[in-house]
Amino acid sequence: MTAYDELMAFQRQTEALAQVAGRLGWDQETMMPEGAAAQRAEEIGALEAVLHARRTDPRIGDWLAAAEAPDAVARAQLRQIRRSYARAMKVPARLAEEIAATTSLAQGIWAECRSRDDVAGFLPTLRKVVELKRAEGAALAAGGDPYDALVDDYEPGMTGAAIASMFNAMRPRLVSLREKVLGAEAPHGLVGTFGHDDQLALARELATAFGYDWSRGRIDLAVHPFSSGSGHDVRITTRVSETDPFNCFYSTIHEVGHAAYEQGIDPAYALTPIGQGVSMGVHESQSRSYENQLGRSRAFTGWLFGQMREIFGDFGIADEDAFYRAVNRVHPGYIRTEADEVHYNLHIMMRFDLERALIRGDLDVADLEAAWNDRFRADFGVAVDRPANGMLQDVHWSCGLFGYFPTYTLGNVYAGCLVKALRAEVAGLDAMMAKGDVSAATGWLRDRLQRHGALYEPREVVQRACGFEPSEGPLLDYLEAKFGEIYGV
Amino acid sequence: MTAYDELMAFQRQTEALAQVAGRLGWDQETMMPEGAAAQRAEEIGALEAVLHARRTDPRIGDWLAAAEAPDAVARAQLRQIRRSYARAMKVPARLAEEIAATTSLAQGIWAECRSRDDVAGFLPTLRKVVELKRAEGAALAAGGDPYDALVDDYEPGMTGAAIASMFNAMRPRLVSLREKVLGAEAPHGLVGTFGHDDQLALARELATAFGYDWSRGRIDLAVHPFSSGSGHDVRITTRVSETDPFNCFYSTIHEVGHAAYEQGIDPAYALTPIGQGVSMGVHESQSRSYENQLGRSRAFTGWLFGQMREIFGDFGIADEDAFYRAVNRVHPGYIRTEADEVHYNLHIMMRFDLERALIRGDLDVADLEAAWNDRFRADFGVAVDRPANGMLQDVHWSCGLFGYFPTYTLGNVYAGCLVKALRAEVAGLDAMMAKGDVSAATGWLRDRLQRHGALYEPREVVQRACGFEPSEGPLLDYLEAKFGEIYGV
Repeated sequence: MTAYDELMAFQRQTEALAQVAGRLGWDQETMMPEGAAAQRAEEIGALEAVLHARRTDPRIGDWLAAAEAPDAVARAQLRQIRRSYARAMKVPARLAEEIAATTSLAQGIWAECRSRDDVAGFLPTLRKVVELKRAEGAALAAGGDPYDALVDDYEPGMTGAAIASMFNAMRPRLVSLREKVLGAEAPHGLVGTFGHDDQLALARELATAFGYDWSRGRIDLAVHPFSSGSGHDVRITTRVSETDPFNCFYSTIHEVGHAAYEQGIDPAYALTPIGQGVSMGVHESQSRSYENQLGRSRAFTGWLFGQMREIFGDFGIADEDAFYRAVNRVHPGYIRTEADEVHYNLHIMMRFDLERALIRGDLDVADLEAAWNDRFRADFGVAVDRPANGMLQDVHWSCGLFGYFPTYTLGNVYAGCLVKALRAEVAGLDAMMAKGDVSAATGWLRDRLQRHGALYEPREVVQRACGFEPSEGPLLDYLEAKFGEIYGV
Repeated sequence: MTAYDELMAFQRQTEALAQVAGRLGWDQETMMPEGAAAQRAEEIGALEAVLHARRTDPRIGDWLAAAEAPDAVARAQLRQIRRSYARAMKVPARLAEEIAATTSLAQGIWAECRSRDDVAGFLPTLRKVVELKRAEGAALAAGGDPYDALVDDYEPGMTGAAIASMFNAMRPRLVSLREKVLGAEAPHGLVGTFGHDDQLALARELATAFGYDWSRGRIDLAVHPFSSGSGHDVRITTRVSETDPFNCFYSTIHEVGHAAYEQGIDPAYALTPIGQGVSMGVHESQSRSYENQLGRSRAFTGWLFGQMREIFGDFGIADEDAFYRAVNRVHPGYIRTEADEVHYNLHIMMRFDLERALIRGDLDVADLEAAWNDRFRADFGVAVDRPANGMLQDVHWSCGLFGYFPTYTLGNVYAGCLVKALRAEVAGLDAMMAKGDVSAATGWLRDRLQRHGALYEPREVVQRACGFEPSEGPLLDYLEAKFGEIYGV
């Protein structure tokens, strides 16, 4: 066996164990009896210890030094291994353990404080997490910008400066669009209740329509929708609100986008370092384009309206046009996860600026709430009414996920580029989607992007798929055109 | 940290990883999409490799040499670790790998051959498995009897000779009982179909009645009923046949017996070597006593009859007495897993004699079918009609589970002893069970036996619970009295 073969055999077992860890996470959110929580924490801890030992195994360094890559696939495998090994070796074991232990506890404290609107109770924990993540960022950056080093974990090659420049170009256009739209008359919403089982049955149909491969997946209920797993076992979850069926339908389509990416990767890459989505931003580009650019299009919502009328009867919406406006209703609100396409990126931008300032030491944790509330008033035009609707709303920071938020908007930006290219290349898309047939769109995305997994770097894979350099322009053009037309502004 | 503490900390992580492996097995039988099978095999293989490395870690030997046990619990922990370490070290790694690889393939070949009644197709595989297990037995026995060494894995301290002596005492009385019963008039069976969801709902009620702790478990459907996990996450499965509700109800009660044992163990022992059932025989004593001595008693079936009448209406059974006879109907048949209490142990005895002869080299694989068919005709009075109903019916041998079969009957024998002692000590048991209240019985079993986990050796824990030396007498007395009364013989 060559050094490369030995390294890949070792890595394959590590990837298999990582899949097991993911499956435990899925089980915890969907199946696990509540009394098993403490034991499960030990089980996951034992498995994470095994994974950490493998990821920092010094033989990886030896193999990497000796390995030769005969082709582009092998070079990409080595690039992925080199990156994760370098990251794992830069963070001292004690710091990694302290981060794991602190964030594990912090999530419970955050949930408790959010339920009581208790900012003061959460601040000491948040301060500790910020300190640890600053230390991790510094260890990873080795003299560079600690926030960049954290971002790089979710979006290799991306920097805080590049994100800031993109976000600064987007913000004025989004604020202006938002103001115009909210000045116009609001569309009608749905009326009535929508049966639990009927919603789930239609959600399954939607998943099928968007190309979800049931032979390698399943759908279950969970508090928060998610997609889990790579390769031949990629499961999704959804949730049901009897008064808000769009929650179930569009979170399902969103998760199908994530899952379709994983399921669409060349099977030859399964259980290898390139056998998974290349970054959070590219992942989000799939879920967002499935959910928004395709799922909330005039064409597809026309088909969905017919399906819903057949199943649920009259729900107070007269026709396809009114339904399209209801699906794409813009409503101001405090909560990121409930935001529409116009507001969503404004939520992300403020989190990005705030967390970057925290990690770079430009903002103290004690001043975060005031900074949040000031920015919210500036961008959204209203005051935050309570911390649970403000700086306590997201779990991310308590999990230590600094550098993660911007990948959501990056995903939207990439989705804007991809769907622009898709529409330029595939004729008759809307006519097909109007009949519920999304296969031309999902097939194009699979062929152009999904199948490559992590073969190419994030920006590179998007650029190859689109045929042009990705930028925020297509997303903004799309949003202004779509909502300008819906609201007549 | 003392050597003992270090050893126990190491062992705790191993036990946690073993629970993860068990959870993967559960997922595979209940939740996994079919297309994930090959990837799952790799995931389990990777985890088993981690477990094998931990179980043969030479530091265990050093810790064992240095560890001091201050009390009975610590002594039992060391006994369990010493036993599993000695076993793991005696089997050469290559042999262990070959057994794993061969039996993994053999199960598929067995299923295929069984479906085609193809004995000749299965024999080369069976021969290979027998050879490997003989080699393993020889390595473990180190000069002793290889079959004893295999039995010891499932039932520590038990030997082939001791089992043979017990079985030889049982066989004539069982054959004689069987002949008398089959000479009498057969009771009526149930008529009609029984709705899937109603069966499951009643199965859940039965599980609750038998003390299943839902906060630390759940029930799902699977092809073969099983119980899985230890400590705070012990899950069971069942199955539903619309024409045979007893299949669902009694397999549920059976699995609840297994699960209640694991759930009943002192929580202080969770994720330690004594934090699980001490042997297969003792485990089976719980599932069998729950299912048969308690669940098929006149008192409990009286309550069950009322429940079933309420849910399913008239199903052709006039009253509680007729229902009791229907539940305990004795019917000759080829299949072990469908056997009644009178026939069941006769199935086991023939498997025990045959597999013991195979491992000791007294029977060649080529002669197995003839030996099976001769013995079946002798004990059951009819000829085997096809191999799928004969020597191809059980998966065990293809899995390499030689030495496992006798623990089923050992479980019945222990159950006979335990329920004899229970009935002598707890007054009013039948009056309570006639109202569906089994808590006095399950509470006694938990207090006397289950809570100890593997603190005591198998025979010892049964003897402590009963207050007398376990033997086959109580089981045979129970069977003769019960079926003598039902059949008037």
